[in-house]
Amino acid sequence: MERISGIMESVRKKVPLVHQITNYVTVNDCANVTICAGGSPVMTDEIGDAPVMTGFASALVLNIGTANARVVDTMIACGKAANDAGVIVVLDPVGVGATSFRSSAVDLILRKVDVAVIKGNAGEISIMAGEAGKVRGVDSVGGSGAAAAEALAKRTGAVVGMTGPVDYVSDGKRTYSLSNGHELMGRVSGTGCMLSAVVGCYVGTKGASVDSVGAAISAFCIAGDLAGEKARGPGTFKPLLFDALYNMDGKVADERRRYRSCTAST
Amino acid sequence: MERISGIMESVRKKVPLVHQITNYVTVNDCANVTICAGGSPVMTDEIGDAPVMTGFASALVLNIGTANARVVDTMIACGKAANDAGVIVVLDPVGVGATSFRSSAVDLILRKVDVAVIKGNAGEISIMAGEAGKVRGVDSVGGSGAAAAEALAKRTGAVVGMTGPVDYVSDGKRTYSLSNGHELMGRVSGTGCMLSAVVGCYVGTKGASVDSVGAAISAFCIAGDLAGEKARGPGTFKPLLFDALYNMDGKVADERRRYRSCTAST
Amino acid sequence: MERISGIMESVRKKVPLVHQITNYVTVNDCANVTICAGGSPVMTDEIGDAPVMTGFASALVLNIGTANARVVDTMIACGKAANDAGVIVVLDPVGVGATSFRSSAVDLILRKVDVAVIKGNAGEISIMAGEAGKVRGVDSVGGSGAAAAEALAKRTGAVVGMTGPVDYVSDGKRTYSLSNGHELMGRVSGTGCMLSAVVGCYVGTKGASVDSVGAAISAFCIAGDLAGEKARGPGTFKPLLFDALYNMDGKVADERRRYRSCTAST
Repeated sequence: MERISGIMESVRKKVPLVHQITNYVTVNDCANVTICAGGSPVMTDEIGDAPVMTGFASALVLNIGTANARVVDTMIACGKAANDAGVIVVLDPVGVGATSFRSSAVDLILRKVDVAVIKGNAGEISIMAGEAGKVRGVDSVGGSGAAAAEALAKRTGAVVGMTGPVDYVSDGKRTYSLSNGHELMGRVSGTGCMLSAVVGCYVGTKGASVDSVGAAISAFCIAGDLAGEKARGPGTFKPLLFDALYNMDGKVADERRRYRSCTAST
Repeated sequence: MERISGIMESVRKKVPLVHQITNYVTVNDCANVTICAGGSPVMTDEIGDAPVMTGFASALVLNIGTANARVVDTMIACGKAANDAGVIVVLDPVGVGATSFRSSAVDLILRKVDVAVIKGNAGEISIMAGEAGKVRGVDSVGGSGAAAAEALAKRTGAVVGMTGPVDYVSDGKRTYSLSNGHELMGRVSGTGCMLSAVVGCYVGTKGASVDSVGAAISAFCIAGDLAGEKARGPGTFKPLLFDALYNMDGKVADERRRYRSCTAST
Repeated sequence: MERISGIMESVRKKVPLVHQITNYVTVNDCANVTICAGGSPVMTDEIGDAPVMTGFASALVLNIGTANARVVDTMIACGKAANDAGVIVVLDPVGVGATSFRSSAVDLILRKVDVAVIKGNAGEISIMAGEAGKVRGVDSVGGSGAAAAEALAKRTGAVVGMTGPVDYVSDGKRTYSLSNGHELMGRVSGTGCMLSAVVGCYVGTKGASVDSVGAAISAFCIAGDLAGEKARGPGTFKPLLFDALYNMDGKVADERRRYRSCTAST
């Protein structure tokens, strides 16, 4: 895979504007992590405002964590605006499969919008891949490894990032497992949402690929490793995570990175 | 009262899913405190999504802090779904009495939904108890002690938790004062909302009782004590509060706990 | 200019209630910074609730960062309620000029509501002043210094606070540059929104003037200086910023303050 350091440098140089329609639980952390990753966040979900803003952005991140009917309409409108303007769309299908509202919202977005990246947890990706996966609330239980990521990438044409104790990234042809990350990341609300924001920065700079999505996942998880070494719990972990991402040295990131190819088919 | 340690261990073992329809000011802190208390949070207020999610939960927390007409409708729908499914309902009547909208919302919820726990500050509980209390904005001024908590518990059949310099818990028959907590808890926005999330974890695990609600209040306030010993102000206090709750040793909690019976009647 | 220390003491003594209709990205930080500045926050945007709450407040802060059509209606209603009740109105025109929705919202508010203070970044104030300014997303690029602040103050009759590497405050007659602040303030989402909350506390206590708005800007930026000396990045900076504002010694603030008169005309 392409090194993190080079991609990270490009992101920091470009400062990509990342339009995010996300949930009200983690939106502040998403804005701050975007800045720490080298991007510039803008959040708006008013249908009379948001599609115009999408046009200024380098990437659009759609996160259905607390979406309501009004916001789903805005997501579709912004997704179309993004497609028209060549803005890359990232989908975070939070809790898909848990309720029919969420599943329908995801189906609708995938039908109406050309989504370049799908980033979800193991349960979400497994369900979207049509495999046996179980979603309880918005957190995943179980999941099914690299095969699910690869299958979903093949079916949708999107690059798929799948998080869990081990993370996976696949474009349907190349699949990698990524093994950085600290257990405290699972003890802070919204680390998944934050990762989608980081992915938005990276694909908004370098385009959507296994390399750019993989670099975003690894960079964020390495920040987690670094923060986890100093934190005393979930509370002190979060500010340290932001600092670690903001201060990250590209060379250190390259060295710390752990991944291997695990393409299931071909 | 039943020891904190045993209840806390049960919560951590069960990891109860707590569905929260809460305000957008403190929702992120509520999610994080839920995790630190041993639970798993889910937030959604779309009427087409939320009642289904309620059915998966162990407790439903309704907080009217920034409720609007749309969200009150969702609260009623979720409250009914909770009652149908045997999911325990906790009400946090933020700012009740300050405006007729808030008072009407609380009245409506109490009429349509079987609420098992009411957790509010001294002003809110006093007003709901029909006593002289004054609410300015969403913070309480004044208040009237154990009698108000006991009266409201008797009138509604709910377990009542009432916070202030001294906290009270009552089911109408047994009433206790609880004396842990640090003054910096009053200098951070949303500690009341966070406590309701913790109460959701505890009653979602052990059912609604003076013991479970009292244990939640004491555990959260002891975390406040521990955080207050190290914090330099409200900013550094909050992450330390989360860490303290997450790392809390049950035995230490039992030792630090301060309470006494103060049943006013019977 | 009037000293910070005296104004700060008055704010802490009064504990002004500041009603804020603000964006869901930074609302929690706005609530906490209000407390740290010595005020008491209340957030509500339901049209059946909010105008009543405005009547209890000392100041009303309108921030259009993530406003939607429903919320703009509430802003107008609350603005009128504030004018009727003698409550001071502060407007933060986030992203004005970036989209027609935002520009129309600002125009509408200025037509329907008597706004006493406008607090924006260089790009926003320049655009409102009718000068060449460029807004990309909600962050400003470029800007035009003291003249823009003074021109907007003259045109609207409001006291104008304009932030950037150097900040300005003007009532159209007196204009000052204010030079405190740390670069990490620009690496945390919502410091502009937080400043508007602090301005709300100060003008809600002492009325809207170059002195009160200038004191709020300086106090907040001095807190930034103090926090920046200890922080290791944007993550640890934010809690330290809150602590610094909360613990601020008036005398230290007076000593650290850097400003000079730069009235362009007269």
